[in-house]
Parts: sequence; C-alpha cells; structure tokens
Amino acid sequence: MTAPKISSSSALQAAFFRLRSNKLFELFVIGVIVFSAITIGIRTYELPPLLVSVMAVLDWVITIVFLVEIIVRFIGEPHKKQFFRAGWNVFDTLIVVVSLIPVEDSELALLGRLVRIFRVLRMISIIPELRMLLNSLIKALPQLGYVVLMMFIIFYIYAAAGSTFFAAINPDLWGDIAVSLLTLFRVMTFEDWTDVMYETMAVYQMSWAFYISFIFFTAFAFLNMIIGIVVNVIEEEHQRERDAKAEASGDPTLRDLQNQIAELKQLIERN
Amino acid sequence: MTAPKISSSSALQAAFFRLRSNKLFELFVIGVIVFSAITIGIRTYELPPLLVSVMAVLDWVITIVFLVEIIVRFIGEPHKKQFFRAGWNVFDTLIVVVSLIPVEDSELALLGRLVRIFRVLRMISIIPELRMLLNSLIKALPQLGYVVLMMFIIFYIYAAAGSTFFAAINPDLWGDIAVSLLTLFRVMTFEDWTDVMYETMAVYQMSWAFYISFIFFTAFAFLNMIIGIVVNVIEEEHQRERDAKAEASGDPTLRDLQNQIAELKQLIERN
Amino acid sequence: MTAPKISSSSALQAAFFRLRSNKLFELFVIGVIVFSAITIGIRTYELPPLLVSVMAVLDWVITIVFLVEIIVRFIGEPHKKQFFRAGWNVFDTLIVVVSLIPVEDSELALLGRLVRIFRVLRMISIIPELRMLLNSLIKALPQLGYVVLMMFIIFYIYAAAGSTFFAAINPDLWGDIAVSLLTLFRVMTFEDWTDVMYETMAVYQMSWAFYISFIFFTAFAFLNMIIGIVVNVIEEEHQRERDAKAEASGDPTLRDLQNQIAELKQLIERN
Amino acid sequence: MTAPKISSSSALQAAFFRLRSNKLFELFVIGVIVFSAITIGIRTYELPPLLVSVMAVLDWVITIVFLVEIIVRFIGEPHKKQFFRAGWNVFDTLIVVVSLIPVEDSELALLGRLVRIFRVLRMISIIPELRMLLNSLIKALPQLGYVVLMMFIIFYIYAAAGSTFFAAINPDLWGDIAVSLLTLFRVMTFEDWTDVMYETMAVYQMSWAFYISFIFFTAFAFLNMIIGIVVNVIEEEHQRERDAKAEASGDPTLRDLQNQIAELKQLIERN
Repeated sequence: MTAPKISSSSALQAAFFRLRSNKLFELFVIGVIVFSAITIGIRTYELPPLLVSVMAVLDWVITIVFLVEIIVRFIGEPHKKQFFRAGWNVFDTLIVVVSLIPVEDSELALLGRLVRIFRVLRMISIIPELRMLLNSLIKALPQLGYVVLMMFIIFYIYAAAGSTFFAAINPDLWGDIAVSLLTLFRVMTFEDWTDVMYETMAVYQMSWAFYISFIFFTAFAFLNMIIGIVVNVIEEEHQRERDAKAEASGDPTLRDLQNQIAELKQLIERN
Repeated sequence: MTAPKISSSSALQAAFFRLRSNKLFELFVIGVIVFSAITIGIRTYELPPLLVSVMAVLDWVITIVFLVEIIVRFIGEPHKKQFFRAGWNVFDTLIVVVSLIPVEDSELALLGRLVRIFRVLRMISIIPELRMLLNSLIKALPQLGYVVLMMFIIFYIYAAAGSTFFAAINPDLWGDIAVSLLTLFRVMTFEDWTDVMYETMAVYQMSWAFYISFIFFTAFAFLNMIIGIVVNVIEEEHQRERDAKAEASGDPTLRDLQNQIAELKQLIERN
Repeated sequence: MTAPKISSSSALQAAFFRLRSNKLFELFVIGVIVFSAITIGIRTYELPPLLVSVMAVLDWVITIVFLVEIIVRFIGEPHKKQFFRAGWNVFDTLIVVVSLIPVEDSELALLGRLVRIFRVLRMISIIPELRMLLNSLIKALPQLGYVVLMMFIIFYIYAAAGSTFFAAINPDLWGDIAVSLLTLFRVMTFEDWTDVMYETMAVYQMSWAFYISFIFFTAFAFLNMIIGIVVNVIEEEHQRERDAKAEASGDPTLRDLQNQIAELKQLIERN
Repeated sequence: MTAPKISSSSALQAAFFRLRSNKLFELFVIGVIVFSAITIGIRTYELPPLLVSVMAVLDWVITIVFLVEIIVRFIGEPHKKQFFRAGWNVFDTLIVVVSLIPVEDSELALLGRLVRIFRVLRMISIIPELRMLLNSLIKALPQLGYVVLMMFIIFYIYAAAGSTFFAAINPDLWGDIAVSLLTLFRVMTFEDWTDVMYETMAVYQMSWAFYISFIFFTAFAFLNMIIGIVVNVIEEEHQRERDAKAEASGDPTLRDLQNQIAELKQLIERN
C-alpha cells in the first residue's frame, strides 16, 4: 500500500535497517565489544613497547568499528528524531565520540582510559536479554523508595549522634557526618565493627547499645525490604495467573449459569 | 445536623485544621525538617565562628517554626483530648519543648544536641507513608516473639557457659555474662570469631565445638525466623486473595445452582 | 461412666494432676526458672563472700523447688509408664538429679555449674509454644538430610585436598583433616579468608581457584537448602489451603451439577 | 516374546545386572567408599611406618574393589554402547584407572593422592538421591545465566577501573585485572574491605564511591538472582498444581454445563 517510489536515501535507510537487524552483524559487534574488553584487560599488565603500539592501533580499529556501527544504526533508523530518545543510543554515541578524542594529553588520558572501560557496558546495550534485565532491575527500584528513605533516616541520625559523641575519640572514623556515614556502612557490613565498638566503649561504657541497636534497626529494615520485594514478586505472579485465567475464559461465570437456569424456570412455568 | 452557630474559637479551629491539612503547609514543614537535618550535619564539621553564630540563629528559627506548627496542629485538632493520645504528637511536642531549653549550660549541651538530632525523626511523623511503614514493622514484631525468646535462651546458656569456662582465658571477652553476650553477638556476626576461638582452643582443645554449635543454633533459629515471616506474608497474601474473591462474589455458589436445579426438577415433575 | 470409687492414691494423682495443670503453678515454676537463670548470670561476676553464701542457699532452694515440681508432675501423671517416654521429662529429671550431687568436689564442680546452666533449658520444656517451636525445628531437619550430606562431601574433599597441598605451608590451619575442616568452615563464614588464601597463594599461585570454587559450591548448596525449605513451606501452605477447601465443601462439584442437569433432561424427555 | 535362547555371555550379563541392582551390593560399595574416605582422612595425620604400610595395602584393596565393581557394572549393562554415555560411568572409570597408576614416582604422587580424594565423589555417583540433587542444581544454573553475565560485566568494569587507578597504590591488590577481580570478590564478601578502601582513599579521597557503588550493584544483582530463583520455584509449584488439577478433571467445565442447560432449554421449547 506504501508508495513504490523509493528515494535513494530511503533505499539506503532500508538497506541499513536490514543490516542492523542482521544476526551476523549483531554477533560481529558483540565480538568486537568482547575483543575490546579483552584489550582493556591486557592493558592492565606491564606490556613490551611493541605490544603497546599494537594495542594503540587495535584501539583505533575498535573505535572506528563502533563509529561505523553507530552510523549504520542511525541511518537505518526510520524515525531519526526518536533515535536519541533511547537512552542507550545516547550512551553509545557518547562513548564513541569521547573515544575519538586523542589521549596523548596526560590530563585527558585518564578520561580516555575510563571511556574505553565503559565500552564494556555496550554489551548490555546490544544484548536484548541484558537490557531487559537491567530495565526490570530499574523498575524494581521505586517500590523500595520509602524503605530506602527510612534506612537513610536511621543512618543519618546514628551518624549525627556518632559524630557528636565519638568525634573526639577517633576523628578518622567519626570526625564529621560524612565519615560517620561511611563508618556506619562498615558496621552494617560487620567489617571489623567490634574494633570500632571497643574503641568507643573504652570511653563510653554503654556505647555497645549504640552499635547493637543500629545493627538491629538496619537488619530489620533490610529484612523488611527483602520481604517487600518477595511479596511484590508473589503478588505479580498471582496477578499474572489471574490474568491468564481471565483470558482463558470467555468461559461463562456461575452467574451466567444462574441466569440461564432462571430463564429455564420461567419457560417451564409458562408452559 | 450539627448546630450552624460557630464560635470564633471553633472558626479558628476550622481554619487551622484546613491549614494543617494543606499540602503546601505540609511540604513547608518537611522542608524545614530537611533543612534542620542539614544543619545538624553541618555542625559536625569544624566551622568558622561566624557560621557558628548563623547556625545558632537558624536553630532558633527552626525551633520556632516547629513550635508554631505544633500549636497550629493542636488548635486545628477538633478533639483536643485525643491530641496527646497519638504517640507521634507527644513525641513532636517533647522534641520542641526540650529544644526550647537554652543549651549554654555545658551539662545540658549534649542533651540539647541529641534532641536536635532526634528532630530528624519528625520526618517519619510527618510523612504518612513512613509512618505506615514503621507501624507495619512494629506490628510484625510480636509474631517473632517466641523465636526471639528461643534465641535469647540460646544466647544466655552459651554466655553463661562461656563465662564459666573462658573467663580466666580472656576476661575482656568472657569476664562476666554481659560481655559474654556481647562476644557471642560478635561471633554471630562472624566478626573475627576465629580469633576468639583460637584463643580458647589453646586451653580447651575441643572448644571449637562450642563456637560451631552456637553458630549452627543461631543460624538455624534465624532461618526459622525468616521462614516464619515469609509464611506469614504468603498467608496474608492468600487471605487477601480469598477476601477479594469473597467480595467479588455476591456471585452465586455451586450450592445455589444446585438448589435452583432441584427446584426446576420439582417444577417439571409437578407438571 | 467411670467407677466412682477412687483410691486414696488416685485421689492424690487427680489432685496433683489438677495442681500441675494449674496456670498459677506453671507461672510459679517459670518464675523460679527465670530466677535460677538470673542467679546463674550473677555468679559470673566477682561476688562478695556473703552473696556467695546467699547464692549457695538460693541454689538449694531452686533445686528443691524443681525436685518437688518433678515429683508433683510424676505423681500427677495418670499413666506412670509413659512419663519417662517424653524426652523432656527425662531431661528435667536428669537436671534435677545431677543438681542434687554436692559440688564441693572440685572435679565435679564444673559439671555442677554446667548442669545449673542447662536448667535454663527447662524454660523450653515448660512453655508449650517454645516446645512446639523446637519440635517444628527438629521436624524440619530430615528434609535437609541430603543437602547436608552433599555439603559434608564438598567440605571433606576440600579439606583432604587442602591438607594434602597446604599442610607444609601452615600446619596450624591445614595440618590434618580436622583442622582443615575448621579452616574451611572459617572460609565459608568469610572470616579473614583472604589471609588464609594469600598465604597459600605465595606458594601455589593458582590456589585462589581452590577458595573461590569452594565458596561457590558451598554458597550454591546453601542457597539450594534455603530454596528447598521455602518450597516446602509454600507446598505445606498450599496443602493446608486445599484441605481447608475440601473440608468447607460438602459443596457440590461441577460433576454433581452435570448429573442433575442430565436427570432433568431425561425427565423432560420422558414428559 | 524375546527369544528364549540365552548365550552364556548374556546369561553372565543378566547375572551381573541382578548383582549390580542388588541392594546389599550397593550398600557394600557405599561402605567401601566411606572406608576409602576415612583412609584419606587418616593419611593427613602423621602416621607410624607400620600404619603407612597398612594404608598402602588397604589402598590397593579399595582400588581393586572399585575395579571389580566397574567391571560388574559394565558387564551387567545390557547396552554396552550407552555405558560411557553416562557421565558418571566415565568419571568412575577414570578415577579407577588413574588409581591403578603406581604412585612411587614423586611427580605423579600428588596426582595419585588427588585422585584418591576424588574417590569420595563416587558417593554422589552411587547414591541416587545425591545424583538427583546434583542434577537439579545443574539444571538450575542456565536460568541464572544472564544475571551471572551481568555480574561478570560489573566485576570486569570495576576491576579494569580499579586496576587503572589504584595499581600504583597497591600492586598486590590492584596490579593487573586478574588480581583486581580477586580483590573485588574479597570486597563483595566484606572481608577487610575497609582496609582496601582506606588505603586508596588516602590518595583518591572520593574512592569510597567506587566501593560503595560496587557493593550496591553486586548486592542488587545478587538479590535479583535470589528473587529470580524464588519466582521460578513458585511458578513451578503453581504449574505442578495446575497440572494436578487438570489431571483430576475429566470434570466438566462451566462451559459444558452451559451447553447442557442450553440443550435443555431447546428441549423444553420444542415440547
């Protein structure tokens, strides 16, 4: 039904769209990403000068492949305006563009290396299953909102109190509210938390109550978080089941049957 | 049906009730609480003298805002007697009243700072979702009662035994039943528990059995606690589902249908 | 219908049975157990000589109360033979009997103290909810049987391998299979496991694979254990629900209705 | 229906098949495996020379028993070709064959000891419940595939970044990507992770963000993994229930009843 006239530009678009949806092309790109990840790994070792030069060349090749791929995807996109609406496209483009900046400058060298590391994230943007997994993770976040807020309030109060009382004892751990928050996070992970406690107990003998109550509160809030998630998951599961049932049934309800029987009765009575 | 005569006092009450229910007013109070929390955080840093004075002024402003808010809420309350029945109102009032005590006195200074920290808890009293979350946490506690009692018995027996046998080895860890309980809590969190164990194993070679059995018992009791909660949650879930079903059904039951068919049969037979 | 003649012995039995079932009597015994637990706690502190004497007297009082209670329970038991079939009765009797042994002898002193500590366990034997809880814990054990066996096999293999390779490196940790098992348990609790690992990595560079694989295997087996329990719990929950449904329904089934409608049809056809 | 003529070879096969399925034979083999495991444990202790000789003899006895058992199983197998298709048979045969290699040679001695340790795994191959458990564990792995891949990507990126920034600070922990991965695994288990963090924070003050974000990401991915498994388990549970229902019901559906009532109606109308 669409007009058979195809301009050379839209012919190109269609061709690139096909290329971009091609399984082999996708596998090739995944291969290049994996290869890119491996080169990043290799760079962390001491390398002979020759290999360093080879790596530099490989880096350019990878950058160019990525650039070409982005261009193919962009040209293949039927609706150009929507291309940059997808967060992953923006991310991919950014990574490629920053990779193009030459890294000789020692100031930018670190940024350059960092961007090359982030290329590994392209794995997620290109494998649909990983993209879906990440999306479902992100979707699960808001329901945790209030528990996280509650937990932050607990942390903040304990950090403020800890900083008030213990700053004089060990400024490295309790000097201000920021390091106190870090120290409390450490206590929550049980990492040498008794060392922290024994130190303050030498001054305030009852300070064990501070730590034990904190551990209880956070453990309790954490438990609640987990249970909240599990309940949610079970509820969704049930919902899906109910939906499946509802779908399967253009099936009559008991009420339908009741009505039919009532009709029948009237019919008999009228006879 | 209520008398249309409104005294000036009840007009004030109605106006304050509206104010107190006003979304903007609530947001303003939340804003002040957040600001108060930030000032508490800032105080934990070394501050120049000027900023200290500014903070002192800000503290008074915050205290006055809280005072005004409590008064508005109290006057806006239709049933004055019930105001102090709500635990949160008592808590809020207490926090404000103690904040009014001047903190120059070095004795009271610490209490004053502590009260200012507890102001952050007003966040929970003012955001309904957090209040509900806390209530649901507190409601979940009693069902854990017997498991917690069981766990305490385990702790107490091990602490008494530990104190009896190991007090001579390391009085700091096993000197009396109180520090023994603390040491066992530490062992339960796996925090350097092998150091504690190796020390006693040097004297009592078999004392590893003490620790390993303790870890198993507490882990098992803890597991049981979690499972108890999960089962509870699932049961509630099922209950809610059943309730939903029951509600949805003014729907006839199979028995209703059976009765109707039986009537039909009689009708036909009589014909 | 039972014979009204009651011998004096069975009158005593009935009276003691009533006493033993009396709520106040039970509360009194619980009170004595709690008091006994408190005295055990107090003994772990340095005490002035006077208090030591008081404690010794109190200890005798407690022992006698327990003795009297056991006798009451035994006489109150309608079926004497079954009394010692209940594990808890045996346990209670043993505790009381051993408490009667004088503890002056320094050899037996420790045993005496231990028995006094175990008295706290009588809390479980006397509070029905705790007894039920413990029973349900014990009932849950067998279903874990094979996973525990699997885990023990994993532990044993790694301990044998660890002892074979690492015994020369650190005999304290890997000297023989027993200490190796203890070391592996420590690794499983993540307690300073990297110290253990770095030590062996200095000799066998690849030994990280030993630890990482061990952690994965045990974590995986542990996960499986938890899931097994959860599934079990959910299954029981469903079963109970199904039973509840089945009970609630002397309700007709769809098949019953079908049969009735078929009868109706025949009736009409015959008309 | 099969031909009654049985060659002497197939008579042997049938006899050995019966032997191999014999409960006593199985128990005997399990006993030998347990005994073999015990000798492995004993070897890790210092032994007097006499016991060493005894152990060597016992080792040969065990090897021969295992050899005989494999031969019995092989001859007893009706379909010889399928024998080596079962992974466990290959594993058992390999273990036995390698055990036959004399271990005097010090080079091979370690391999010989290792193979003797792996004999304990025969426990899994011979007890059907353990074999089933292992199979179900292995079957559960693929569904974790993408979460594990996601987790590996997170690990790899953090390891590359950590190695880039922190290699100069502590080459033992961050020297190259391999040790960085190990260090991150250590951080994930919370093992002295703050020591690692404080060291890098001395140089890069903001590096706490590196660790905290890593812990959050891995914890979140891990949580997701657990939830994924739980959902899966619940789904399977529901599926089984649905299957059970479907099986129980050649029961008529509501639609069947509706059709019957409609027929009835026509019947009455025609009358």
